Amino acid sequence: MSPIVATVIGDPCGVGPEVVLKALASGQPLAMSRPLLIGSLAALEKTRAACGLDITLRAVSDVAAARFEAGVIDVLDDIRLDPAEIVFGRASAACGEAVLHWLQTAERLGRTGAVHASIMAPVDSTAIRLTGKLKELDDLQPAGTWLLRVSGALRVVPIAEHVLMRDVPATVTQDHVLTLLRVLNDTLKRFGLAQPRIAVAGLNPHAMGPEDREQIAPAVEHARAEGIVATGPVSPDAVFRQCLEGRHDAVVSMYHDQGQIAVKTAVFEGACSVYIGLPYVHLSIPHGSAYDIAGKGVAQHKSMLAAMLTAAALAGGRGFL
Amino acid sequence: MSPIVATVIGDPCGVGPEVVLKALASGQPLAMSRPLLIGSLAALEKTRAACGLDITLRAVSDVAAARFEAGVIDVLDDIRLDPAEIVFGRASAACGEAVLHWLQTAERLGRTGAVHASIMAPVDSTAIRLTGKLKELDDLQPAGTWLLRVSGALRVVPIAEHVLMRDVPATVTQDHVLTLLRVLNDTLKRFGLAQPRIAVAGLNPHAMGPEDREQIAPAVEHARAEGIVATGPVSPDAVFRQCLEGRHDAVVSMYHDQGQIAVKTAVFEGACSVYIGLPYVHLSIPHGSAYDIAGKGVAQHKSMLAAMLTAAALAGGRGFL
Repeated sequence: MSPIVATVIGDPCGVGPEVVLKALASGQPLAMSRPLLIGSLAALEKTRAACGLDITLRAVSDVAAARFEAGVIDVLDDIRLDPAEIVFGRASAACGEAVLHWLQTAERLGRTGAVHASIMAPVDSTAIRLTGKLKELDDLQPAGTWLLRVSGALRVVPIAEHVLMRDVPATVTQDHVLTLLRVLNDTLKRFGLAQPRIAVAGLNPHAMGPEDREQIAPAVEHARAEGIVATGPVSPDAVFRQCLEGRHDAVVSMYHDQGQIAVKTAVFEGACSVYIGLPYVHLSIPHGSAYDIAGKGVAQHKSMLAAMLTAAALAGGRGFL
Repeated sequence: MSPIVATVIGDPCGVGPEVVLKALASGQPLAMSRPLLIGSLAALEKTRAACGLDITLRAVSDVAAARFEAGVIDVLDDIRLDPAEIVFGRASAACGEAVLHWLQTAERLGRTGAVHASIMAPVDSTAIRLTGKLKELDDLQPAGTWLLRVSGALRVVPIAEHVLMRDVPATVTQDHVLTLLRVLNDTLKRFGLAQPRIAVAGLNPHAMGPEDREQIAPAVEHARAEGIVATGPVSPDAVFRQCLEGRHDAVVSMYHDQGQIAVKTAVFEGACSVYIGLPYVHLSIPHGSAYDIAGKGVAQHKSMLAAMLTAAALAGGRGFL
C-alpha cells in the first residue's frame, strides 16, 4: 500500500487551497501515494469556482472513510469554517484559528500513524497573529525539530533558525552539531538512504577558525566513531556546490543565512522543506499565502506538487526525488 | 584606441602561462583591447611546447615596443627568470620572486597610465611563501582595496575579507559601509555604468537586527543623500538572487562567506574578480595555480578569457560584459 499523505490546505483566504487542488489535479500524487486534504470544504469549493478548476471534492469524516479515487479529492473537514469568513486576500482570526486546528489534526493523525506524511500549505502570519495564540510563523515549527530545505540536489538544515549573527558563534557547539547529526542520520535512513553522506559546514571562512577546530571537528569525529558518514568542517563557500554536484546527501549548516543564501540563490523548481526530528514525515513549502493573487487562478503549484511527491517518496522509504 | 591590458602570467610552474596563451590565442582579447603579457618568455615557450599551442611570442623591452598584432603575442620579460627554475608543478622561491616582481611592474605601469588594465594569472601560495616576503595570498591584495567578485550577473564585494564570524558584527559599521558605497559607486561610474544601482545586504536573518538598523540603514540613507542609488539593508538570503535577476548592478556584502556562498553555489562560466579602490583597472581570476595539471594542456582558460574581456570593457568605460 502506498503512503497516506495528508495536506493541510493552509490559510483559506490565500493561495493554499488553489495550489493543493492544482497539484492533486495533476494526478501525480495519486500515482505515488494515497492523498487527502485537511481543511475547509467551503474554501476549496470557493477556490475551485473562482479559479475555474475541473475537480470533484468529497467530504470525509475521517481518514478511514477516504477512498483515494482518481478524479475525486477526499477532504477531511472537521470544523466547518463559516463560509462568510472566507474572503480572498483578507486575514481573519477565524481562518487563523482554523489553520491551527487543522495543523493539530494533521499532527495527531501523523503521531498515531493514521497518516504517513503531512504537508502544510501556505499559512498567513497576520491571520495567525490575529488568533492571539502565536506571534510568529516560526512558532508553528514543532518543538525539537530542525527544518531541512530541499531544492534540487541541495539539502540543507541549520543547527538553529533565526539567530542574530552576534549570537551565532555561541550556538556552534559540539553538542548542537552532534545532536543534529544523529537525528539527521536516523531520519535520512528512515527516508530510505542506506548510508547517508552528511557534510558539516564550517562556521568561519575556509572553515579555519576556533569554532571549526574546537566544536565542529570534534562533533564530526564523534559522529564518525558512531558510524555516521559525516565530513567536515567543510569550507562554507564550497560545501553547497559540492552537495549540488552529488558529493553529499545533505549539509548541516551553522546559521540560517549560510544555507538559505545557497538555496535561494541557486533556485530550482519545486523546493520544499522537511521537518527533521518527528516520528512521521512532515513538510512545508517555502512560499507564503500570497493574498495579492489569491482566488485568481494564477498561483504556481510546483512547490506544492514537489512537496506531495517528496512526502510520498520519503514516507515510502524511497529517498528524495 | 582600445585599452592596453597587461596580464601577468602568474606562477611559471602552474597553469597561468597556459591559460593566458589559450585566452590570447582565441583572438577575442585583441578584438577589444591591446593585450600584452608580463612574465617569463622562457616559461611561455616551455608551456607552448608542452601544451602543443600554435602561437608566436615576441619579447618587448617596454609597453611602447609592443605591436599588438594578430597571431603574435607581445611579452614584456624584464627579469629573464633562469629557465632551470621552471619545472611544472614545483614551487620555487625564484618563481615566487619573479611573480612578485612582475606584479610590481604591472602596478607601476597601471599607476603611471602606461597600461589601462592589468590582470593577475594564478599565483602559487607555496612559491610566494618561499620568498619569505609574504605569508598569505591575501597579502597580494593592494592596500585600501576591496575585491568585487563577478560571476554571471552576480557582482559582490564584501566590506572586509577573511574575518572570524565572532568578529564580523563589530566590522559592520556605518563608516565601513558608507566608505565602500562611495568607492564602489565612483568605480562603477568610471567603468561605464551611468547610475549604478547598489544593494547593501543586511547582516542578520531577514536584515532584522541591531546592526541592520543602527549601522547599515543609516549608511544607506547617507549614501542616498549624496546621490548614490543605494538600497538596503536587503535580506541576505534574497539580495543575491535579486542581483542575478538584474535588479541590482552590484551587492555590498557584510562578510566573506555571505557573498562567496552565493558566487560559488550559483556557478557561471568565466568568473573573475575586480579590485575596487585603485586608479586603474586590476583583475584576478578565482582559481589557483593547479600544479597537478600544469604543462598538460588540459587547463580551462574561460575565467582568464572572461577576465581579459572584462578588463577591456571596464577600462574602456563600457561596463560589464
